[in-house]
Amino acid sequence: MLSELQQRYATPLDEFLRGVVSEIHPTELNLMQGYAFGWVDETGKAMRHMSGKRLRPYLLLLCCEAAGGNWQQAIPAAAAVELLHNFSLVHDDIQDQSIMRHNRPSVWARWDQAKAINVGDSLLGLAFHTLHALRESFSAETVLAVWHDLNVALRELTRGQHLDLQFENQPTVDEDEYRSMIEGKTAALFAASAKMGARLAHHPGYDRFAEYGRHLGLAFQIRDDILGIWGKRETTGKSAADDIRNQKKSLPNIRGMQREPEFARLFEGGKLSDAQVERARSLLNRCAARSYAEAVEEQFGNAAIQAISSLNMEPVAGGWLKELPAQLLGRTI
Amino acid sequence: MLSELQQRYATPLDEFLRGVVSEIHPTELNLMQGYAFGWVDETGKAMRHMSGKRLRPYLLLLCCEAAGGNWQQAIPAAAAVELLHNFSLVHDDIQDQSIMRHNRPSVWARWDQAKAINVGDSLLGLAFHTLHALRESFSAETVLAVWHDLNVALRELTRGQHLDLQFENQPTVDEDEYRSMIEGKTAALFAASAKMGARLAHHPGYDRFAEYGRHLGLAFQIRDDILGIWGKRETTGKSAADDIRNQKKSLPNIRGMQREPEFARLFEGGKLSDAQVERARSLLNRCAARSYAEAVEEQFGNAAIQAISSLNMEPVAGGWLKELPAQLLGRTI
Repeated sequence: MLSELQQRYATPLDEFLRGVVSEIHPTELNLMQGYAFGWVDETGKAMRHMSGKRLRPYLLLLCCEAAGGNWQQAIPAAAAVELLHNFSLVHDDIQDQSIMRHNRPSVWARWDQAKAINVGDSLLGLAFHTLHALRESFSAETVLAVWHDLNVALRELTRGQHLDLQFENQPTVDEDEYRSMIEGKTAALFAASAKMGARLAHHPGYDRFAEYGRHLGLAFQIRDDILGIWGKRETTGKSAADDIRNQKKSLPNIRGMQREPEFARLFEGGKLSDAQVERARSLLNRCAARSYAEAVEEQFGNAAIQAISSLNMEPVAGGWLKELPAQLLGRTI
Repeated sequence: MLSELQQRYATPLDEFLRGVVSEIHPTELNLMQGYAFGWVDETGKAMRHMSGKRLRPYLLLLCCEAAGGNWQQAIPAAAAVELLHNFSLVHDDIQDQSIMRHNRPSVWARWDQAKAINVGDSLLGLAFHTLHALRESFSAETVLAVWHDLNVALRELTRGQHLDLQFENQPTVDEDEYRSMIEGKTAALFAASAKMGARLAHHPGYDRFAEYGRHLGLAFQIRDDILGIWGKRETTGKSAADDIRNQKKSLPNIRGMQREPEFARLFEGGKLSDAQVERARSLLNRCAARSYAEAVEEQFGNAAIQAISSLNMEPVAGGWLKELPAQLLGRTI
């Protein structure tokens, strides 16, 4: 189904995005944005396969359709959520000092930190800029509401990001704190995407769509946490068990720290050796941290479907929306 | 006159800003924002004297008054331009690795780089958020237009910042390139401030106000360049001649590179010794780089006044607007 969404939305979205990015000057800033979007490789050559899953814009367009709207008119909003997402990735990689993203050097690693901070900032400016193009098809009132939705997501994102950075220096993190962090860092933009799509369809139940998106985002983040420990390098582009090595306060690791004192001790010390990483993983298996995380993920997925179950929706797109959580739960990348 | 503006606008602006910042969570993020605004010192204690000149918000409010508007209603927009300005300072200090700002450690130096990037991002989210409060007094159409003005400034700012960062690795920079850089990095937000103020007064000549603000910003930047070489540490909070030591492509230095081959050679090499800095300064004096920069500054100041000379304005505030360039040209801090 994801490939069906891609077939439907990818080309018009990509064309719109390339159009707005191509207006950017100077040339190097333009190139860096194209690189962040996966259009060119690190030598500036066109990439054959675009990187990035474009989940958030597809969610927005699908919600717009499901809510009975014209998805083509919503393309500028879809571009905006993808731009905001890419802004956050560019800054996130600097903040985490991650040198790889989508199997290529991250933007700051390819250029430098100073310019990469600025590229992130410029992507944010571009995100809000694209929203302005909605004015062609929508009232000032609607465009303003959609702009506010996106800005709420930005504010939530920075709140969540601050918590995430704080957690690094915090010996323990409980599940409530974790939940508050991912509400901001991940769920808010999913919620905004769904809400904006429904709003542009003038659907009165846009808050239900927001709830759908929020829970989908929460489930998505937990899937990410699971892949950060049990995923395969070939499919995720990250080393398996990276989140153990980096002692990340992800849901499975929080569970491990609560349930396995030896695991908690491993997380208190300095950087882990390969043997310690393996030991930590077997301790997570012993306390069934993975199936615990999968149960939480499933709850969120069900809550997403529940949020829109009583809504009046366009049947095909509405049906896809209800399938989406299961699709994302099963993902391996 | 600047102190009269301060007396008039400082308290209501500050109260509004403190209100919106106080809603921020978590606490540490809130503290970091308060620090960036100069409300608390690095230990978290309230500062007696607020740092930061608040020039851009005062410009916005004064333009609103001069254009016949109600400046109290424009406070959220004034807060927004100050928030955007502070976002750019926080990121700028990271990009330049400057450890001091307003005689205190810069945000990243006091906390860390990762959190400081995020504080900048969150100030940007807050800037757009405050604009939404304009909806109480203005139509959706007007709020959207003002939001777009601010976002144009953000986009210009990142364009200018990219150029500035590029210049560091460029052996020479000509005056056209320099001009393009400061149009983005400094003038755009001054232009937006003036334009937003006039727009909120429903003055049909808001583009003339924008031209006024743009030229005022250009003059302001050149004054900054002059102070970066001939300013006194006690008043600017920076070491005198910092811009020579850092081989910054500022207007006087560009003039020196063009006119004095020995100066150009000093700028080609590595970091300058104290003796070389002194030699460079005497070479700048020999080619009259300071009076050249002051002449350019004056031109911009006159162009600012010219831009609004034929407009219908409220006489007191309009008179102040016409005095403002001379006030800023004479500044020593």
